[in-house]
Amino acid sequence: MAEEKPTLVRADALRQFCEDVFVSLGVERGDAHITADVLVAADLRGVDSHGVARLKRYVDGLKDGVMKVHPRAKTLVEMPATITIDADGGLGQPVSYRAMRTALDKAANVGAGFAAVRNSNHYGIAGYYAMMALERDMIGVCTTNSDVLVVPTFGRKALLGTNPIAVAVPCGRETAFVLDMATSTVPRGKIEVYDRLGKPMPEGWATDETGRNVTDATRVLKNLNTRAGGGLLPLGGEGELLSGYKGYGLALLVDILSAVLSGAAYSDLVYPKNAEGKPLPANLGHFFGAFRIDAFRPVDEFKRDMDDLVSRLKGAEKAEGATRIYIAGEKEHEKTLERQAQGIPLHPKVVAALTQIGSEQ
Amino acid sequence: MAEEKPTLVRADALRQFCEDVFVSLGVERGDAHITADVLVAADLRGVDSHGVARLKRYVDGLKDGVMKVHPRAKTLVEMPATITIDADGGLGQPVSYRAMRTALDKAANVGAGFAAVRNSNHYGIAGYYAMMALERDMIGVCTTNSDVLVVPTFGRKALLGTNPIAVAVPCGRETAFVLDMATSTVPRGKIEVYDRLGKPMPEGWATDETGRNVTDATRVLKNLNTRAGGGLLPLGGEGELLSGYKGYGLALLVDILSAVLSGAAYSDLVYPKNAEGKPLPANLGHFFGAFRIDAFRPVDEFKRDMDDLVSRLKGAEKAEGATRIYIAGEKEHEKTLERQAQGIPLHPKVVAALTQIGSEQ
Repeated sequence: MAEEKPTLVRADALRQFCEDVFVSLGVERGDAHITADVLVAADLRGVDSHGVARLKRYVDGLKDGVMKVHPRAKTLVEMPATITIDADGGLGQPVSYRAMRTALDKAANVGAGFAAVRNSNHYGIAGYYAMMALERDMIGVCTTNSDVLVVPTFGRKALLGTNPIAVAVPCGRETAFVLDMATSTVPRGKIEVYDRLGKPMPEGWATDETGRNVTDATRVLKNLNTRAGGGLLPLGGEGELLSGYKGYGLALLVDILSAVLSGAAYSDLVYPKNAEGKPLPANLGHFFGAFRIDAFRPVDEFKRDMDDLVSRLKGAEKAEGATRIYIAGEKEHEKTLERQAQGIPLHPKVVAALTQIGSEQ
Repeated sequence: MAEEKPTLVRADALRQFCEDVFVSLGVERGDAHITADVLVAADLRGVDSHGVARLKRYVDGLKDGVMKVHPRAKTLVEMPATITIDADGGLGQPVSYRAMRTALDKAANVGAGFAAVRNSNHYGIAGYYAMMALERDMIGVCTTNSDVLVVPTFGRKALLGTNPIAVAVPCGRETAFVLDMATSTVPRGKIEVYDRLGKPMPEGWATDETGRNVTDATRVLKNLNTRAGGGLLPLGGEGELLSGYKGYGLALLVDILSAVLSGAAYSDLVYPKNAEGKPLPANLGHFFGAFRIDAFRPVDEFKRDMDDLVSRLKGAEKAEGATRIYIAGEKEHEKTLERQAQGIPLHPKVVAALTQIGSEQ
């Protein structure tokens, strides 16, 4: 494979481009801005799989009518600490942004706040919404279900998504703790890398159509595409030896909180298709939460202890051959600073796809 | 090793025995009852490491004054959805039972409720408190920090506990979903089994004093006892290949929610000792949460979807060589039914220890 040099693009320019694309499709300017901001935030953090490379899927969804351009989200149930919202099948990002803001407002009022969203679409990176809590001195939580790729422990068929869990916790002088993890061992993107390289994968990443561990990336992807069976393994790998049932339990928990609690589609009922194989509305579910820190103890005490805990971990003796102990979110924070300064590197294929999208609006 | 036949003891008798032991030490009858109930619940569920086999540690703690016999727990901060409680160094179980009940009451009032507890002690199994939500048609959540045994990714020294996460979710006709998982790959008890058998452990369970993967169980336990370095690996194992940083991130999250948010001791500051090596109060922290289901959607709809999701998973095609797909908590539920009917099997060593404790009161 020939080396292809990425193009460096400034975050602002990329955000404006995406926003204008959404507006040209009829999306309201405010919603377009939020959606673009979430996409570019993924690129800034180095989560390229969830960034502008995904723009075409949103554009196609809006054009095909699978995602509504003018959804009318509505509140279904509400209490002082909780709310359930029907997203009416619009873009996932704007409704998620507002749901998280509502959770934060509720937390400001009563100490903790939660929002469940049904009938939504892919919302980008979970960490974006959890991190909205940081500037308000709160802890933010976010989960979503997603397209099924993950096989339950002892199962043969993918019945769960990579169902991420994101939690953001503010520190004082230290970088915020931002855990944003898929509950599978690895994301699909890592399998695709091994497929391109033609290399055997490590055991514990995926199963073949018999439901057993496999190192052949090409076979796993082919099976996933044809729904022949197998898929990604939950965190902890196959069976019980390395406690894969814990990753499976977490993935199922995320499906429950995001979809069963909100009334969205769960397991392989997400992303349904009609009899002709045409995609129908995805009906994804999300879950957002916020804790007001000073509802538990003074913020300055909390941040002092967070700084101390973080610096104890980072300053601890390293394993042989290791040079650094990281805190969740630290690598992504450094990547953000780097890409804010130098620009976001876009693969030539992504540049071509964006150029194509721009020319079609 | 000679086979030693266990003695079958009825749960009621065991509970009464433990309760009377605590009362004889001066613990109030109500607190003694709760503590005994939590201990025996662990034995019923098959989590023998957290059951009556641990009674001596509580008895010693109360006798030594490391745990207060008559603590005066007090509320530090309170809002409609939140509360922080100082446990005043008493037994972990009674204050945890009350904190969870408060979280449930708050959830009944405003939709969600949370309680953070500082200055506490070992509280038994996390699942007990999460499961208190089930009979009230709520989702229960519980975490605690614990004695340091787990090495952070790329670290050489144990700086985190096995820090469990428990979540209980009611179903209709199906058994409730009860996830109660340590965030390490395996608990210390599993290493002890391999030590006794003299068998090499699987890779991904523990590290030696250099911070690298090791299969020598005896060496790991010796290192932990002498604080020579190394310890259990977080869920996902060593380094980043199988995403051990996710288990590490979850373990750290539990330390934050349980200890930093409540104002308890965190990382290796738990279970401190004085200059002479005598144990001082542990200052553990716990975190309890409850979600009122009908604050999000009608309970009957929620349970219908839970039943459907659970039965889809259980009924799905099994991996080659597997006969069953489990739901979190299902094995423990079946164990409970079995042990309620047949009695709890106690190892002769445990019977001897309990007899000794009984004779000393």
